[in-house]
Amino acid sequence: MSAEGAQPATTQVVILGAGVIGLTVAHVLSKDARYKIKIVARDMPDDLDSQAFASPWAVSAGYRLGRAALTPSPPRAQGANWSPMGEYNARIYKWEKTTFDKLWDMIPAGLAITSPSRVFYDAGADLDALWYKTLVRDFRILGKDELPDGTHAGVGFQTVSVWPQAYLPWLKSELDARGVEFVRKRVATLGEAAALAGPNGVLINATGLGARSLIGLEDKDVYPIRGQTIVISNPNVREFMCTELTSAEDGNATYVIPRPAPGGWTTILGGKYQKNNWDTSFSAADAQGILDRCAALAPAIKDPETRILRHNVGLRPARRGGPRVEAEKLDLPLKNEWLVEELPEEKGTVLVVHAYGFGPAGYQMSWGAAEEVGSLVDSHVNPNKA
Amino acid sequence: MSAEGAQPATTQVVILGAGVIGLTVAHVLSKDARYKIKIVARDMPDDLDSQAFASPWAVSAGYRLGRAALTPSPPRAQGANWSPMGEYNARIYKWEKTTFDKLWDMIPAGLAITSPSRVFYDAGADLDALWYKTLVRDFRILGKDELPDGTHAGVGFQTVSVWPQAYLPWLKSELDARGVEFVRKRVATLGEAAALAGPNGVLINATGLGARSLIGLEDKDVYPIRGQTIVISNPNVREFMCTELTSAEDGNATYVIPRPAPGGWTTILGGKYQKNNWDTSFSAADAQGILDRCAALAPAIKDPETRILRHNVGLRPARRGGPRVEAEKLDLPLKNEWLVEELPEEKGTVLVVHAYGFGPAGYQMSWGAAEEVGSLVDSHVNPNKA
Repeated sequence: MSAEGAQPATTQVVILGAGVIGLTVAHVLSKDARYKIKIVARDMPDDLDSQAFASPWAVSAGYRLGRAALTPSPPRAQGANWSPMGEYNARIYKWEKTTFDKLWDMIPAGLAITSPSRVFYDAGADLDALWYKTLVRDFRILGKDELPDGTHAGVGFQTVSVWPQAYLPWLKSELDARGVEFVRKRVATLGEAAALAGPNGVLINATGLGARSLIGLEDKDVYPIRGQTIVISNPNVREFMCTELTSAEDGNATYVIPRPAPGGWTTILGGKYQKNNWDTSFSAADAQGILDRCAALAPAIKDPETRILRHNVGLRPARRGGPRVEAEKLDLPLKNEWLVEELPEEKGTVLVVHAYGFGPAGYQMSWGAAEEVGSLVDSHVNPNKA
Repeated sequence: MSAEGAQPATTQVVILGAGVIGLTVAHVLSKDARYKIKIVARDMPDDLDSQAFASPWAVSAGYRLGRAALTPSPPRAQGANWSPMGEYNARIYKWEKTTFDKLWDMIPAGLAITSPSRVFYDAGADLDALWYKTLVRDFRILGKDELPDGTHAGVGFQTVSVWPQAYLPWLKSELDARGVEFVRKRVATLGEAAALAGPNGVLINATGLGARSLIGLEDKDVYPIRGQTIVISNPNVREFMCTELTSAEDGNATYVIPRPAPGGWTTILGGKYQKNNWDTSFSAADAQGILDRCAALAPAIKDPETRILRHNVGLRPARRGGPRVEAEKLDLPLKNEWLVEELPEEKGTVLVVHAYGFGPAGYQMSWGAAEEVGSLVDSHVNPNKA
């Protein structure tokens, strides 16, 4: 579009949401200087450890607009490692394989660690046919002596983990260095977000649970999966372990995720997996169940030296039908029936690329999904990109 | 306790929560210079209009501790007027009468306004026996010509309204002038809060929905009542109207609350009243129902000049058995079974006065409840107070 040697034309890209998906999409797109990128969100990754950052830990009393995923995923409660979730799906396999390898490559820089892992299954499961056998490293079927009491079968492998409180700030620092702009703003409607991108602009919709409430989108397939976790410190708990995450009709999911952290490891014990449950209050009964189930896998948790540091309750931003990564073109100005807005009257088209609904798997799909978003943007905006 | 003429001994008072209850209790107690008052909360009234204040409008994605009511009640979505709620209860009548009269007295200063009101009942209701007849001003039974289509009986009166976006900052400014200290802090346990008050100190527990999650208290009688409202501007909607707030089995509550505001009135249209529903997402179906029900009472809402400015969804901090305003003495250090905390080892007793569970009625019970809290504190700390 530009003459040889001249400044290339730039495209305004607005990313709505500063969670791990929004930040990773920004990382992928910002490699191309033709994209002028602005991340617009209610809360910012810099806020994560700030006293001023209320969202991840405080739930407001009284009235509020449900705008869950304009906020970054709060880090203290997250693994965040690659864990096996669900059945084989070609698209998701690709996203997760891409992400696993990308995080694995970050190990030398200290941004990620490798972690020995054991995952347990019902007796009779066809472990040799597990879909993620080629995704993880050093996959093997466990011998009987490696099975904790009460488990019947299992596999071992090496997975990769990041510590979100270091990882998200690293992502943010990369984006800062590339000139990505961060704008703190509460956006109520898809039309308002599209207007920020403007005619011929690109809007990335990385709003997570907020996609349900974003007026003009109102994706009612988006729903929460309630989680509760416990953060402990115990230097003897160093292995990732979980049971198969099945349909979880009892709302239980059992996982032990050690995480590297400055000043010593901490370990996430989980958890609950309650679909369509919005309850963000602490449940002592849930905490007791988590401790008992995790200690059955990792008996060291019952050691007197275990210190419980924190309890977390939160909502995973899931979607019926799976994550939505999809492009559509919308005409500006984009009105809606629910709010009177003073939008710019300028006409034009915005490319909207949706990237939400990753449920429990935002971190482990992030790089693969972000690359697909990048390809969708390129194919519309710079179709002849080398 | 002090010699005549000497500096009187002071008592450290920590108020946990900066909602309308916490602030009003601080206002009552701070009249007595012997109370050294610190308000500790996750979010502060100053944040209400700040872009940095996420809590009232943003719900975080991912994990968070359910700590609802350490945040102030967000103002945009609130009436906040005196509305009839529930049946007669002597204690609550006293709280509401005290509050009504106090707010009425603020009208000349411009902090509150009086508002003509109509409330509608089923045919056959004994309107002349309504319990709040002596609480409001100019109470009368409506004539047939004053009943909108579809209503069968009703009463008229003058109520009082405040505009929370001005009222809460006014409360805050009063407290600032009296030297009340504000500390932004996330408190996870009752023991941590009690330690802030210290031996012989006083802790006011004004945590609202957070009382359910405050570890060491974990009051499971606390529950949310989901609400959804619409803020409109229409200069022709100037009268408070509602239908009787009954048990609301359908989850509907219908009210039209005009509020004074700089630059023109806005009006809250409500609403939903869904017990034990934590869903903080926007529902277009709920919004449509609210518009239809309110327009049946106030047809001007259907005028083309009505502008919808905002939708709000939130949780009212209710409690089975009603509000808890009650004193108890607890021994320090106060341990709990769910978190390892580094609490001061100093022994002593803390007076805890609970003040939470006001549900939809925080504003309209605030002054009466705060005075009862003040009396409870005085009776323990300064029993011979004049």
